[in-house]
Amino acid sequence: MLSWVDGLPAELLSVKDRGLAYGDGLFETIAISGGEPSLLERHLARLSEGCARLHIPIDLPVVRTQLAAFSQQLGEGVAKLIITRGEGLRGYAAPQPAQPRLILQASAKPVYPSAYAEQGVRLFPCVTRLAEQPLLAGLKHLNRLEQVLARSEWHDAEHAEGLMLDTSGRVIEGVYSNLLLVRAGVLITADLTRCGVAGVMRAELLARAAALGITCQVRDISQAELLAADEVMLCNSVYGVWPVRALLTHDWPVGPLTRKLQAIARDLLDC
Amino acid sequence: MLSWVDGLPAELLSVKDRGLAYGDGLFETIAISGGEPSLLERHLARLSEGCARLHIPIDLPVVRTQLAAFSQQLGEGVAKLIITRGEGLRGYAAPQPAQPRLILQASAKPVYPSAYAEQGVRLFPCVTRLAEQPLLAGLKHLNRLEQVLARSEWHDAEHAEGLMLDTSGRVIEGVYSNLLLVRAGVLITADLTRCGVAGVMRAELLARAAALGITCQVRDISQAELLAADEVMLCNSVYGVWPVRALLTHDWPVGPLTRKLQAIARDLLDC
Repeated sequence: MLSWVDGLPAELLSVKDRGLAYGDGLFETIAISGGEPSLLERHLARLSEGCARLHIPIDLPVVRTQLAAFSQQLGEGVAKLIITRGEGLRGYAAPQPAQPRLILQASAKPVYPSAYAEQGVRLFPCVTRLAEQPLLAGLKHLNRLEQVLARSEWHDAEHAEGLMLDTSGRVIEGVYSNLLLVRAGVLITADLTRCGVAGVMRAELLARAAALGITCQVRDISQAELLAADEVMLCNSVYGVWPVRALLTHDWPVGPLTRKLQAIARDLLDC
Repeated sequence: MLSWVDGLPAELLSVKDRGLAYGDGLFETIAISGGEPSLLERHLARLSEGCARLHIPIDLPVVRTQLAAFSQQLGEGVAKLIITRGEGLRGYAAPQPAQPRLILQASAKPVYPSAYAEQGVRLFPCVTRLAEQPLLAGLKHLNRLEQVLARSEWHDAEHAEGLMLDTSGRVIEGVYSNLLLVRAGVLITADLTRCGVAGVMRAELLARAAALGITCQVRDISQAELLAADEVMLCNSVYGVWPVRALLTHDWPVGPLTRKLQAIARDLLDC
């Protein structure tokens, strides 16, 4: 598959890169349809915010240009865009100035069982919890061992996703998705200022729902509230929206707001 | 400088490596003197424990053999040993079976001002705090953004190291060292079961101190206790022991146990 490093076809990277040494970087996973990145502005905005918070100096117009060219060449698939702080010497101190590196990797669009989108999915209750680190919360950075551990907890296809709580027991997100609840017509999603990844599909769906006059709340969610929800759904920028059907012995129906947001996501992703 | 990937000279790595994608791996920083790794068994034991906790299947005899050959060729310097879970497809799920990768990188022994070891160092009070994640605590894994952020807080040479607290305000460690206190003849170091890196020099010094009949305590340390300590020191597997002389307006004397442990560390590192 297509793979570029700093705009040139390459499948290799220096072992001195700080992305490897420290996970010192960020990534975006972007659906590409008809040669165009979906949710492009939201991906670039999150990347830009992440680079600002980690003090990684990127040239956003260059990122935009390379992503556009890569997407054109890919046509259909998923582009993984990685920004690292570039090469460094031994030690945590960053080179001044840093020379960030841009990596683009293509993969095919994943094929999930159609039942996931149609009938909904079952959540695996992960015991791996998310640590509370406000300095990194919300960012899609390269320090992802918590997700690796959580994803290793189940191997069956019956569970499409895992539910992650934070170390205080709050409901946060899926391992590779955000979680949205509906309760009495209100759309609720977790506050991600202590941990979690602020997904671009989550942001877009919140904006679309608000524009439709739906009340949206971004706040802490208890486990009891999750179980009491009228509808539960997952979202990400590759598959769109999946209804959540079950967690352990608890079942939720697939509700109308889930179907409405699912249709919006399909439209956004051209799928 | 010398650089090997899986036993062969190489300076490049696949961009598909999970070490880059997720920081899915571990590392050791090993002082090499006369072609021999210092604290070898402790480094291998920590690496082995880390791989077990992250479920990375390594062949320890192969690691030992490659490290020995690399050290022989290096002679004098520092070897950075990185184990990653190897290549993966898109997504957090690890390939089954994983094919871990072993990277060895050489650098020269860092040259620090002699005053650091002789008169002691000043600590920078980092505002970056360590998140509490028991599943990763103690490991020298590749998710090191907290250290990158902490190390970016100061740029002057007056501060040799930074002091890191956890998010609850406990005293944990330096950015690239462990911290040891002496109070009424007792050697005290932070409990690292919630966060922090359990350094091999720390482990060795605790064992040596205990063998000398010194009472050692591994437990939570408050900021007040740090300030009330009779002696404070830092240690790691490259520079050995540095006395800590000051933090903001507080000063500590350089005490006898610090000097004793410093001599032991010098002996261990052949420096």
